[in-house]
Amino acid sequence: MASSAAAIVFSDSPFRSSPLIHNHHVSRHAPGSVSVVSFNRRVSRRGLAVKSALIEPDGGKLMNLVVEESRRRVMKREAETVSVRIKLNRVDLEWVHVLSEGWASPLKGFMRQSEFLQTLHFNSFRLEDGSVVNMSVPIVLAIDDDQKFRIGDSNRVTLVDSVGNPIAILTDIEIYKHPKEERIARTWGTTARGLPYAEEAITKAGNWLIGGDLQVLEPIKYNDGLDRFRLSPSQLREEFVRRGADAVFAFQLRNPVHNGHALLMTDTRRRLLEMGYKNPVLLLNPLGGFTKADDVPLSWRMRQHEKVLEDGVLDPETTVVSIFPSPMLYAGPTEVQWHAKARINAGANFYIVGRDPAGMGHPTEKRDLYDADHGKKVLSMAPGLERLNILPFKVAAYDTTQGKMAFFDPSRSQDFLFISGTKMRGLAKNKQNPPDGFMCPSGWKVLVDYYDSLSAESGNGRVSEAVASA
Amino acid sequence: MASSAAAIVFSDSPFRSSPLIHNHHVSRHAPGSVSVVSFNRRVSRRGLAVKSALIEPDGGKLMNLVVEESRRRVMKREAETVSVRIKLNRVDLEWVHVLSEGWASPLKGFMRQSEFLQTLHFNSFRLEDGSVVNMSVPIVLAIDDDQKFRIGDSNRVTLVDSVGNPIAILTDIEIYKHPKEERIARTWGTTARGLPYAEEAITKAGNWLIGGDLQVLEPIKYNDGLDRFRLSPSQLREEFVRRGADAVFAFQLRNPVHNGHALLMTDTRRRLLEMGYKNPVLLLNPLGGFTKADDVPLSWRMRQHEKVLEDGVLDPETTVVSIFPSPMLYAGPTEVQWHAKARINAGANFYIVGRDPAGMGHPTEKRDLYDADHGKKVLSMAPGLERLNILPFKVAAYDTTQGKMAFFDPSRSQDFLFISGTKMRGLAKNKQNPPDGFMCPSGWKVLVDYYDSLSAESGNGRVSEAVASA
Repeated sequence: MASSAAAIVFSDSPFRSSPLIHNHHVSRHAPGSVSVVSFNRRVSRRGLAVKSALIEPDGGKLMNLVVEESRRRVMKREAETVSVRIKLNRVDLEWVHVLSEGWASPLKGFMRQSEFLQTLHFNSFRLEDGSVVNMSVPIVLAIDDDQKFRIGDSNRVTLVDSVGNPIAILTDIEIYKHPKEERIARTWGTTARGLPYAEEAITKAGNWLIGGDLQVLEPIKYNDGLDRFRLSPSQLREEFVRRGADAVFAFQLRNPVHNGHALLMTDTRRRLLEMGYKNPVLLLNPLGGFTKADDVPLSWRMRQHEKVLEDGVLDPETTVVSIFPSPMLYAGPTEVQWHAKARINAGANFYIVGRDPAGMGHPTEKRDLYDADHGKKVLSMAPGLERLNILPFKVAAYDTTQGKMAFFDPSRSQDFLFISGTKMRGLAKNKQNPPDGFMCPSGWKVLVDYYDSLSAESGNGRVSEAVASA
Repeated sequence: MASSAAAIVFSDSPFRSSPLIHNHHVSRHAPGSVSVVSFNRRVSRRGLAVKSALIEPDGGKLMNLVVEESRRRVMKREAETVSVRIKLNRVDLEWVHVLSEGWASPLKGFMRQSEFLQTLHFNSFRLEDGSVVNMSVPIVLAIDDDQKFRIGDSNRVTLVDSVGNPIAILTDIEIYKHPKEERIARTWGTTARGLPYAEEAITKAGNWLIGGDLQVLEPIKYNDGLDRFRLSPSQLREEFVRRGADAVFAFQLRNPVHNGHALLMTDTRRRLLEMGYKNPVLLLNPLGGFTKADDVPLSWRMRQHEKVLEDGVLDPETTVVSIFPSPMLYAGPTEVQWHAKARINAGANFYIVGRDPAGMGHPTEKRDLYDADHGKKVLSMAPGLERLNILPFKVAAYDTTQGKMAFFDPSRSQDFLFISGTKMRGLAKNKQNPPDGFMCPSGWKVLVDYYDSLSAESGNGRVSEAVASA
């Protein structure tokens, strides 16, 4: 199926081959001195005022929708006085998180209808100054008929978490119809039942959408031991400046890192150095929000990523590992634009795009939902992403003659082994080892432990899921 | 259902209220002297070289893909030598017609994959100079597995009509997968069975699309007695210049013209005069390609339009009636952009948009497929249409106190009668008369005659379709 294949390398013919760095903010101060921040060290120097030469956020300003500390007490009291309270589900809360930190800049809250329609039809919207920013997935909040009735003529609501704690106030609200079928069709290019995000967050959701400006009462925290890995775009930008990065290349992933990924990332850095950059920094940015049931959960993936860095497969000095708080839509060419756009806001000016990004199997037919090449093609042509350098790569594989991940050479295809995500998961489930050199042993052990914990839970020694053939 | 209602007038709050005329070509000659061209007179002064002050075509140049007369013989011989011939169906031929005359400028032929993907995802595409043109509906040609096999490595094919006559050569071809489900979902926002265009032209079509540059051997003619009404964008532009038009406002329709439409069109001209234009000309541009089975056929509509002009309901001196050769997709907000964009190429700088443009009932659910307001909203925000002045209007109705079509006044709603397209057709089918003042009697007679001819064919005196209530 559409799982990312075992290894991935640069294409010989990237869509945009020339490096283009747009330094809209000319630095008046020298960037902060380069210092080593280890994977485990939390970065929280919010006071830094160094103007960076990083790529400008969409719309020119990084949104921060979290109420300033000085106004927090007043706003919390105010939140209590708002008559209508809307309970956020898990995915809603993840979007509040995304919005609050400016990943979706220049969005200031849940989409109103004009933004929603432009997102559905154009994957982008036009700002007041006439410029265009990319926005390919609807970031919307659904309410039901009863909630709409209770809101009546109010112009704001308080958003609360699952136990009723106020999270945010949504002001200047606009309520409009939730065209579920159309939203699904235009976002996924199918309306087949079984799309994980649609089942989780759309099909059963209310018949109305409510847009408005968000004022988030406090930074969103999950208290799951991983908050220290959740750097906001602002914190990431500070970190890149502190490290003196002159190029930032982002890698989006929702799977364990194997040596094919690592090869790609180190190769990218090498190429950027060749292009003349002095200090390209990698943003390894695993997705942390909603994922489908058979993906490896975030906590296990983070443990695995940690091992990969400890093992030296990736260089901690030039790598920032941080969680991207967005939910996963599995919307292929539509979603990859969101993944790229959000990373512009986090300071990345290079984006690595793989085969079939954000893809999955068709939920009801025996085929991949998207053409494996559409993602990178659509991304390379997407309005509002012209400033971003897209780095496409072709699939490589495990070279049995070298015993490591390498470029796929079609002239000796019999030497290569393709290990899909499905196959990798199957091996780990059944406590089989992958070929030497596929993944560092400590990282592999995390995966095996994860599937062990699952079978322990289900009281089942061996997992029966069939292992897909290569 | 979504049929256009009985009368239509300007909204009080248009999306774009200020008139913006972009005269990219400053006229070096005075526009041709104003002359009266009657409805029946064919305009074919292709030699005219007057530079007009009309709105510039998309991409700066109006495409003309018809081979010059001097090269026609050679090209026809060449067409005979091309090894693979692809037979065009009715809709394919209509698209060849559309492309050949430049309605879809700057497209030079059937879309290649990059244009197809940009159309599906962005409803627009970027030209080499970085500018953006609108393009919301795929203009593609499908071929089947066998045809693809036969084409092999050839770089061109000959397109032939239903009896095998060569129509065009498609060169520099590119063959790519036809993602039918995705194409339908992203164009219509649904994949429900029963979408007329999808059933006619997509679902049963081949699994591949073939793009390339078109060289059309001769102007497309249908020999149905209506070719004289099929003015190309180039001919229309010449006609507008000849009439000395300083504003051209387009009205797209696929239904008989009633007095509500007429009220709107004359009111538009009045308003444009008030804005300071000296000679606004109406392009009444009925759609002439594929329509669904229960729409009134083109030949009958044209007879009806002729009566409306003869009757003086519309002024022939300031009206150009001409057929728009496109097939109808019934794709609502997506299609209305195509309808507007094509009219820019024909010289129109104002476009009148109604309630639920290009809408229809949902094929499987008891509701309209699109929100009635989405069309004008999407149109007003569409990339590449910024130069076009969108004129939205609100629904009006038959005022029983005045015995004519008038603005709907909600304070005395009981005085108004809404006569939907469905109701209009029902009345005509059953030889009932609409209220006086709804449509000129000679125009109404055409409709009644049409349904008479149908019942004569089916040998059925009375048509049983239920008349929808107002």
